[in-house]
Amino acid sequence: MGETRTASGFLLKQRAFLKLYMITMTENERLYGLRLLDTLRDEFAHIGFKPNHSEVYKALHDLIDDGILKQVKQKKEGMKLQEVVFYRFADYEAAKLYKKQLKLELDRCLALIQKALKDNY
Amino acid sequence: MGETRTASGFLLKQRAFLKLYMITMTENERLYGLRLLDTLRDEFAHIGFKPNHSEVYKALHDLIDDGILKQVKQKKEGMKLQEVVFYRFADYEAAKLYKKQLKLELDRCLALIQKALKDNY
Repeated sequence: MGETRTASGFLLKQRAFLKLYMITMTENERLYGLRLLDTLRDEFAHIGFKPNHSEVYKALHDLIDDGILKQVKQKKEGMKLQEVVFYRFADYEAAKLYKKQLKLELDRCLALIQKALKDNY
Repeated sequence: MGETRTASGFLLKQRAFLKLYMITMTENERLYGLRLLDTLRDEFAHIGFKPNHSEVYKALHDLIDDGILKQVKQKKEGMKLQEVVFYRFADYEAAKLYKKQLKLELDRCLALIQKALKDNY
């Protein structure tokens, strides 16, 4: 859990939040390299969160370095030299464990924000 | 609002969160210099958040620098050389405006976390 929250245990880190979404996108077989940034930005646009390029790709590479995801390249049918890059699980058990940890962390953050709303308003 | 959230608009910053609590503590006339760190740590201990010394005092000094709070020193009755340091509003309108902005920001963060819980679990 060390890497999911700040040292003081304040709200969770953006990196962890993005990794969680990428794991779920992989479960749904919709994690593609191309347009990943735009997909995530579209997802959160209405809520005022615009993940930056660097955080998104660091999150993706963390998941690969941690042995959770692996990259798959597939040639597009009928098109020479073009390939689609997508992601599959390298270790689904580790992915599920990460999601489980993030559930606890999100619940904790929810409680912290709800407490602030209750204490101050 | 620029300083309350990260550049990408992810969750609000710890500094802003602490400033909000200090404004409310001042409204309740219970913001004392002594033991401020311990008071805040006690407040959040059950939720796993342990604000660090540096963040707490930077938040306090931000509020003073912004002209929202001012320091008051009062001599303790019957005790020579001892004084109590506490805080009062230098600009209560500005304090109320900050609280209003933070309400919007906390609501936004709540929505972001609730969305993550809904999307991933």
